Amino acid sequence: MHSLLICFTNMKIETSQRITYPIKMSPGILYPGNKTLLEYGDSSRRLVIIDQGICKFYIREVENYFRSVDIEARIIIVDAIEDKKNLETLLGLLHEIETFGILRRNEPIITIGGGVLLDIVGMAASLYRRGIPYIRIPTTLVGLVDASVGIKVGINHEGRRNRLGGYYPPLVSYLDKFFLQTLPTLELQSGLGEILKIAIIKDVNLYHLIELYGPTLVEDKFSMNIADAIIEESVYGMMEELEPNLWETNLERLVDFGHSFSPIIEMRSLSTNSPLTHGQAVTLDVIFSSVLSYQRGLLGGVDLARIVNTARRIGLPITHPLFEDPLMLLESLNDTMRHRNGNQNLPFPIVIGKATFINNVTFEEIKIGVEVMKKVQSW
Amino acid sequence: MHSLLICFTNMKIETSQRITYPIKMSPGILYPGNKTLLEYGDSSRRLVIIDQGICKFYIREVENYFRSVDIEARIIIVDAIEDKKNLETLLGLLHEIETFGILRRNEPIITIGGGVLLDIVGMAASLYRRGIPYIRIPTTLVGLVDASVGIKVGINHEGRRNRLGGYYPPLVSYLDKFFLQTLPTLELQSGLGEILKIAIIKDVNLYHLIELYGPTLVEDKFSMNIADAIIEESVYGMMEELEPNLWETNLERLVDFGHSFSPIIEMRSLSTNSPLTHGQAVTLDVIFSSVLSYQRGLLGGVDLARIVNTARRIGLPITHPLFEDPLMLLESLNDTMRHRNGNQNLPFPIVIGKATFINNVTFEEIKIGVEVMKKVQSW
Repeated sequence: MHSLLICFTNMKIETSQRITYPIKMSPGILYPGNKTLLEYGDSSRRLVIIDQGICKFYIREVENYFRSVDIEARIIIVDAIEDKKNLETLLGLLHEIETFGILRRNEPIITIGGGVLLDIVGMAASLYRRGIPYIRIPTTLVGLVDASVGIKVGINHEGRRNRLGGYYPPLVSYLDKFFLQTLPTLELQSGLGEILKIAIIKDVNLYHLIELYGPTLVEDKFSMNIADAIIEESVYGMMEELEPNLWETNLERLVDFGHSFSPIIEMRSLSTNSPLTHGQAVTLDVIFSSVLSYQRGLLGGVDLARIVNTARRIGLPITHPLFEDPLMLLESLNDTMRHRNGNQNLPFPIVIGKATFINNVTFEEIKIGVEVMKKVQSW
Repeated sequence: MHSLLICFTNMKIETSQRITYPIKMSPGILYPGNKTLLEYGDSSRRLVIIDQGICKFYIREVENYFRSVDIEARIIIVDAIEDKKNLETLLGLLHEIETFGILRRNEPIITIGGGVLLDIVGMAASLYRRGIPYIRIPTTLVGLVDASVGIKVGINHEGRRNRLGGYYPPLVSYLDKFFLQTLPTLELQSGLGEILKIAIIKDVNLYHLIELYGPTLVEDKFSMNIADAIIEESVYGMMEELEPNLWETNLERLVDFGHSFSPIIEMRSLSTNSPLTHGQAVTLDVIFSSVLSYQRGLLGGVDLARIVNTARRIGLPITHPLFEDPLMLLESLNDTMRHRNGNQNLPFPIVIGKATFINNVTFEEIKIGVEVMKKVQSW
């Protein structure tokens, strides 16, 4: 007990918050009677948010599942496309949570869908009563290897990608590649774009697998066994990068590879007649950054050619009108620099599987890069 | 380095986030040439958000201050009253931040105002790019002893107090009681309501000081020396409660005293002709909870009488139409219980300076409590 009237002039709050959440390989997570999904929470009801895009395939399955485990599920369907990753969708979701009258701790929200849905629901969960628990079940490849691993949540705002958001961990992420069976080819390719990214900057073994099996993975929708290893290896690579830097204290992030020139371009492309998915935009940025690295003599021509060809063979774009506009690329880089507190912090591959950070790319280099990128397409 | 193709079936993210921020007694924080306010950040410009309510007293002073230290300040005035602690005000603020083109780390937002402003700006700062730094300079008594100490941020939503928000620490809080000189009597009384709360549940010495000096503190607007000790003691008491439970992991919180029946009533009162300030609503709840504790024989009649009389002498309300409506009180308690994950967790004083938690208050007790509260007014 301190004595009164002593002067505390400099007081300080000092504490730390422990964060821990598992990422579980969980085949058959919605199999009737499987209690895994109920290991968290303590109530006979749940709020379940499902991506509209997968409803036609899974709504019956979801309903049957909750009936089989005797849980009264209020199912909310959300049209979670990039164009609707906005304030309006967020507020609609918050209204559903309010109406449900959710308990603060014992009724975790269950989210079944792609990266966009996981991001929005995570944000709603983070804001409602300053945070209620939620569970992630990704149904897309991007969702499995990217959105499920970190703790970023958010929405687009004022024409900027993920301009509003936060860091809010889920209770758990359950990964079940079964959902990929019904995923459109475009989205499988898109997810492979994110996997390609992590492979190029830090995992040459993973790169070899994608180079070898990429087109087959798309074709058979990840049903072959090697797909499990590729998913786990990608998740593991992401975890390795994210865990020591979960709140982005360090703004030199390898996982930002592919996310330097692309954010604004991805947003803009949505209102053109060549809209880009997230993974496509990332791939184009991966190629453009690799081109810049090549121009500087950091990355060899053979490696650049391999990268471009792997992307092409998977069916990912290697060119786009907005990536041919140097001013557009500069504007995008400038906004990214604000996000990196004034620095470029550009991850540049030096060989496949290894990267460095660059901070002095000039507009001149970007202009030349645009020309080189055009040529590289015929390599 | 792990070897590829090993099965990681159960992966786990495990880390912790260190939180530390000082609460500094800083007389003369806006004194021309005083560099204290610039100890954080690294830029020649700042976004400064000021409460409209204090503009007429301090806008010139703020402008002069930033001129004196050679900082280009973009000053934004926000009408931060409880009724406007909403989504619209939050979005307006976020738009100003976007327009300013703030750097992610080196341009901390400077917030000068009352608890409502600190809460809204804190929330905007937490959301923009998943979090940018901000500094708090409270100008009200509630701001000094309450809003500046913890890390809660938020807005009202769907007619519910602080329904949306988060936990987001400031870089620092600078406390300067100089601002209280221009504070309306009503707000000084209101702030004393929060101080009274912390005194009754955990600090009998602080209680004696308020009992003794309360009316004089209001009259001379905290200019006497004892006021410093009272502010520091209150802040210290809040810190002691908050630090080990900053994220409300434990939902039994002594500082929730006065915040069990009042939240919805405070919101409702705003649209009646007896609107309540936050501190007034808290005081009424403090008295009502004390009455319930007295009914159970936990709190003695003398202590209850002292509490009621201290509140009265300070000029705080000891009765209100909405606190005479048992159904209203029940509705409020029910919503609070959702917030406490289904439990009442009601802090009940047992003597002045000490409290316990109660979990089985009945509607019958509330009805009797309303009658007792009426009688207590003539004690």
